[in-house]
Amino acid sequence: MIKAGIIGATGYAGGELVRLLLRHPEVNLIWLGSRSYNGERYADVYRNMTTLSDSVCRDDNMKELAEEADVIFTATPQGFCAGTVSEDILNKAKIIDLSADFRLKDVAVYEKWYKLQHASPAFIKEAVYGLCELKRKEIPGARIVANPGCYTTCSILTLWPLVREGLIDPDTIIIDAKSGTSGAGRGEKLANLFCEVNENVKAYGVTTHRHTPEIEEQLSYAAGRSICLNFTPHLIPMNRGILVTAYADLSDAGIQGEEIVRAYRAHYDKEPFIRFLGEGVCPETKWVEGSNYTDIGFCLDKRTGRVIAMGALDNLVKGAAGQAVQNMNLLFGLPENTGLEMVPVFP
Amino acid sequence: MIKAGIIGATGYAGGELVRLLLRHPEVNLIWLGSRSYNGERYADVYRNMTTLSDSVCRDDNMKELAEEADVIFTATPQGFCAGTVSEDILNKAKIIDLSADFRLKDVAVYEKWYKLQHASPAFIKEAVYGLCELKRKEIPGARIVANPGCYTTCSILTLWPLVREGLIDPDTIIIDAKSGTSGAGRGEKLANLFCEVNENVKAYGVTTHRHTPEIEEQLSYAAGRSICLNFTPHLIPMNRGILVTAYADLSDAGIQGEEIVRAYRAHYDKEPFIRFLGEGVCPETKWVEGSNYTDIGFCLDKRTGRVIAMGALDNLVKGAAGQAVQNMNLLFGLPENTGLEMVPVFP
Amino acid sequence: MIKAGIIGATGYAGGELVRLLLRHPEVNLIWLGSRSYNGERYADVYRNMTTLSDSVCRDDNMKELAEEADVIFTATPQGFCAGTVSEDILNKAKIIDLSADFRLKDVAVYEKWYKLQHASPAFIKEAVYGLCELKRKEIPGARIVANPGCYTTCSILTLWPLVREGLIDPDTIIIDAKSGTSGAGRGEKLANLFCEVNENVKAYGVTTHRHTPEIEEQLSYAAGRSICLNFTPHLIPMNRGILVTAYADLSDAGIQGEEIVRAYRAHYDKEPFIRFLGEGVCPETKWVEGSNYTDIGFCLDKRTGRVIAMGALDNLVKGAAGQAVQNMNLLFGLPENTGLEMVPVFP
Amino acid sequence: MIKAGIIGATGYAGGELVRLLLRHPEVNLIWLGSRSYNGERYADVYRNMTTLSDSVCRDDNMKELAEEADVIFTATPQGFCAGTVSEDILNKAKIIDLSADFRLKDVAVYEKWYKLQHASPAFIKEAVYGLCELKRKEIPGARIVANPGCYTTCSILTLWPLVREGLIDPDTIIIDAKSGTSGAGRGEKLANLFCEVNENVKAYGVTTHRHTPEIEEQLSYAAGRSICLNFTPHLIPMNRGILVTAYADLSDAGIQGEEIVRAYRAHYDKEPFIRFLGEGVCPETKWVEGSNYTDIGFCLDKRTGRVIAMGALDNLVKGAAGQAVQNMNLLFGLPENTGLEMVPVFP
Repeated sequence: MIKAGIIGATGYAGGELVRLLLRHPEVNLIWLGSRSYNGERYADVYRNMTTLSDSVCRDDNMKELAEEADVIFTATPQGFCAGTVSEDILNKAKIIDLSADFRLKDVAVYEKWYKLQHASPAFIKEAVYGLCELKRKEIPGARIVANPGCYTTCSILTLWPLVREGLIDPDTIIIDAKSGTSGAGRGEKLANLFCEVNENVKAYGVTTHRHTPEIEEQLSYAAGRSICLNFTPHLIPMNRGILVTAYADLSDAGIQGEEIVRAYRAHYDKEPFIRFLGEGVCPETKWVEGSNYTDIGFCLDKRTGRVIAMGALDNLVKGAAGQAVQNMNLLFGLPENTGLEMVPVFP
Repeated sequence: MIKAGIIGATGYAGGELVRLLLRHPEVNLIWLGSRSYNGERYADVYRNMTTLSDSVCRDDNMKELAEEADVIFTATPQGFCAGTVSEDILNKAKIIDLSADFRLKDVAVYEKWYKLQHASPAFIKEAVYGLCELKRKEIPGARIVANPGCYTTCSILTLWPLVREGLIDPDTIIIDAKSGTSGAGRGEKLANLFCEVNENVKAYGVTTHRHTPEIEEQLSYAAGRSICLNFTPHLIPMNRGILVTAYADLSDAGIQGEEIVRAYRAHYDKEPFIRFLGEGVCPETKWVEGSNYTDIGFCLDKRTGRVIAMGALDNLVKGAAGQAVQNMNLLFGLPENTGLEMVPVFP
Repeated sequence: MIKAGIIGATGYAGGELVRLLLRHPEVNLIWLGSRSYNGERYADVYRNMTTLSDSVCRDDNMKELAEEADVIFTATPQGFCAGTVSEDILNKAKIIDLSADFRLKDVAVYEKWYKLQHASPAFIKEAVYGLCELKRKEIPGARIVANPGCYTTCSILTLWPLVREGLIDPDTIIIDAKSGTSGAGRGEKLANLFCEVNENVKAYGVTTHRHTPEIEEQLSYAAGRSICLNFTPHLIPMNRGILVTAYADLSDAGIQGEEIVRAYRAHYDKEPFIRFLGEGVCPETKWVEGSNYTDIGFCLDKRTGRVIAMGALDNLVKGAAGQAVQNMNLLFGLPENTGLEMVPVFP
Repeated sequence: MIKAGIIGATGYAGGELVRLLLRHPEVNLIWLGSRSYNGERYADVYRNMTTLSDSVCRDDNMKELAEEADVIFTATPQGFCAGTVSEDILNKAKIIDLSADFRLKDVAVYEKWYKLQHASPAFIKEAVYGLCELKRKEIPGARIVANPGCYTTCSILTLWPLVREGLIDPDTIIIDAKSGTSGAGRGEKLANLFCEVNENVKAYGVTTHRHTPEIEEQLSYAAGRSICLNFTPHLIPMNRGILVTAYADLSDAGIQGEEIVRAYRAHYDKEPFIRFLGEGVCPETKWVEGSNYTDIGFCLDKRTGRVIAMGALDNLVKGAAGQAVQNMNLLFGLPENTGLEMVPVFP
């Protein structure tokens, strides 16, 4: 059994980790860390866990946790993991960091977009970007896995085959994303109140959202050159789900739908958690709710010479906790889908 | 492996049965019956099932199905099961009927409330009312299990110990229930349109809702005499969940909270799917969403001499498909929680 | 023109007052008080007011405001108005208090339910309870109008004719109420976050909600004797709207629906803001959204000898700001519906 | 008083017309036409109209209606108005058509996108496109006003100044739109059921939505040449509201935010129903709910050389009924904002 601990267990992503790890056949959940609720019963913080967890929240002492755990999930604000990690900790436990601290390889880019000084840039190089579909071979040997962002996972998976196969002009990429409100976290903020979100839709973080450089970096690897793109997130009055609608010019006006289908199939047909729906199918977030799937479809517009590629996932599962578990499975040599075969809940 | 078939697999309850049975370790799902979608791929009707089911919908021929299946779930409109069941079918397969056809022992009551003539009253007597917590011993030997209604399950479980232990005056019971909209089914009706339900709350079926006599019958068994009560359902702008708020006069003004706690604990402490939350705790539907749990709490009002007992469940799981699977487990001698250990999804 | 000021203009009720008073033909809105946003442009706090208000928020100095205003609306937390009001202020301006400070005639009851010491009990006696339909004659001469609570208005109006005409046994009254989330205010609380409220329903304040004694006091006047009842509020995932479902035993088993219809008609047929829908009609909150109406209907249950009376209103309009404006109209001799003829918005 | 009739009064746009015209000081609403509810009381179809309307629904006989009315609103499916209008009718009454029949000047484009044969192309030329802000001078003399679509109004108003002033490259325009569900109409369709829409977001009509050529035509006038663009609508789980997020390359990399601000101000500063919010402000649909406003803001992305322009309106008001009333005001020489000064409802 893998001994697992969570720092930040009482945020929404942390709560989802608990939900998944409680039913993971190879995991023993030994530490639910929470600065805000330290000393309280976890099932009193999340009453859905009544009878399922009798744990009491502990603090966020990663050093002590590393003594007890094989793997540590940090579902914490930006800066926490970078400020805490050490050679000593990494020699004792694997870290799967759900924050952005180790996602960007260029520390200057991190510091510019996050407006934080990075506390341990020395570990950036060894950290593996945990988008399992792209880094499946590198993850098993890592000490730190940088679990990707929710918008990022959806955006990259939706566009990767198109960029990789040279089917689109990477300088024309525009990503318009829509997210459920759990992505905004459990903080007590005016903008997250029910009455402010319900019956409302808005863009936010336009031109400045921190997931932008992460998407750009990964798609740059696919393109073999640096990419600059637009990413615009929107807040949707629903709990879970991200939909990405991505636009790009075809690299050649003669490209047909079949070529695009072939590209997606070549990359994704063997993926356990990507469901390519085909040309002309528009994914819906409800089709993946509660599951670890990413659904992808596209439309070709011959009038404008553009492709509209669409992807949907559950931001708390494939966009956070599910992907973290998938990374854990890879780290510990388990079948990648262990504990992750939840059927999407509908309605 | 149990060979299972579903008639009415494309309604919401049928869809939930598919979700649960696909992950049930002892079930082979061999027949997805749907009059409306006969011949279509099930995953085209419910796109959440993409890659999870490659079945094509079949018709609702229960006779033919009985040749192939060990158990048949009928998630069909009132009257279908009663109009189709036969000695021949019952000799070949068990039936778990999610409609109301075999829930009421008195055919006259059925015909009055449902305004239907019962097509096979001869089978009513042998049918076992499938509220597992109450009929655990009778279910294994049954040929027909009458799976309880969603409102009914929640109402009965919430009140049973209080009635059984004589703590409340059964003539004063008032049940005010609130349900998510999936309880209204997948029919294309004006009243179920998003814009009619969203930002709205209303009572419906006041004094006439068909679940009323079912609640009365079961609680009458608890009381040892006939009970007549008020049941008022309300439609809530959410997908899933039922909350029951039940009011009753204490049978004796001196009754204390501890006595009520004791009654609940005595009846439910060993129940795998009932979580008694204690005095002063108000259950929330979100704490049980996606799971087979019923959460129960209560408050005592010394000023008025009444108890307010509250119960919450997911109407598609414990209120329909989950309970049906629980019944199947009992019918086939499996541990009652097999395939039913879903952790509630939050948020 | 009436010069009006609002203390607490940036809460939801305060915001609704601004919406209504901006279009009131006889009002000049001179003061938008807000402790939290003092000095900020009101239209920056509520962007829906862009171009409609160029006011800057002022503080909550009621004394200074009384020098400038003819009427002061206090949409403030419990205790503020009682702690600030003075003979001097009342000699200069009328006060319409949207808090509970002057609603209850018995200061001991106030202090027990609100767990606050009342700072100016001397003014309680002269304050008029501003439920316009009941106190139409007393309001014009008042210096302080105690604007009723949202749950209270709906509960009292729904039950008043039945109690007054002796058609129900007042000792059996049970009120089960459902409210949109704006009733919980604009405070940054975990329980009010979108993800906590959406897809959820729960009871709260069971047996202890502070609107209980207010309902009891007013219905006691109708009954001519002291009444004790149950009031249970529920939080619904919608922005606006209150639905009250009230249960009571008929005072005589022989009472027919027509008698009840007659009672409602006798009391309400001339009321501009009450719409009696008749027997068998269940009001819906959406039918009154954005308007000052209260819709009322009922069902008679001959089986149990009970009546189920239902009322619906918009908690921010008739339940708060609209009723406050109605009171202002009465205070200043204007036609009662001035500025209040909003047609309900659907959908 | 203007005698007004509505054909299609029981759809959502028709219902909103009734809401607005009932409070319009210069209108007498004489005919509520509804094929589906002919002979039923309007207030029984829309219970929010109880006591506000005692009309009985009439049929859709436009010829007869033209004898009685000064103006006819056709809130009907595509093809109805074109199939019914005649010289005779137009000589008797003005027509404001909320369908698309007379919006496109090129009948071939209409027939291609709507897959309908146009029944009266002879009237297309004289019809005036009723986007009041652009056609204010032509509308007063028109016999037929083609009231614009909801997506269209929002898209055109958001982009017009940028195209007109040559600030963006019109070949790079991508419009990603999000709409509340009332835009899908009141039809009893599976896709519009609460449980299908709630907790879900999806794109639809990708590359084929019928509002595309309407946007292209109008923006082509602004550009002085033919434009081809992408328009992608999305369905959002809310009742009302459209948000447009539009992307385009700057026509010159050196263009600064102030130039864009100047362009918007020059075009819109005197508009009664457009509120330009400035650079860096993201409009929200809730800020305009229930009102006739369109709110517009933008962000400039120097990294990518693109502008992201955003617009929000209420699809049933400025996107349908409100704009139709605005057109009526222009047709009959009334101040343009008569009956349209609703303050946005929040929350």
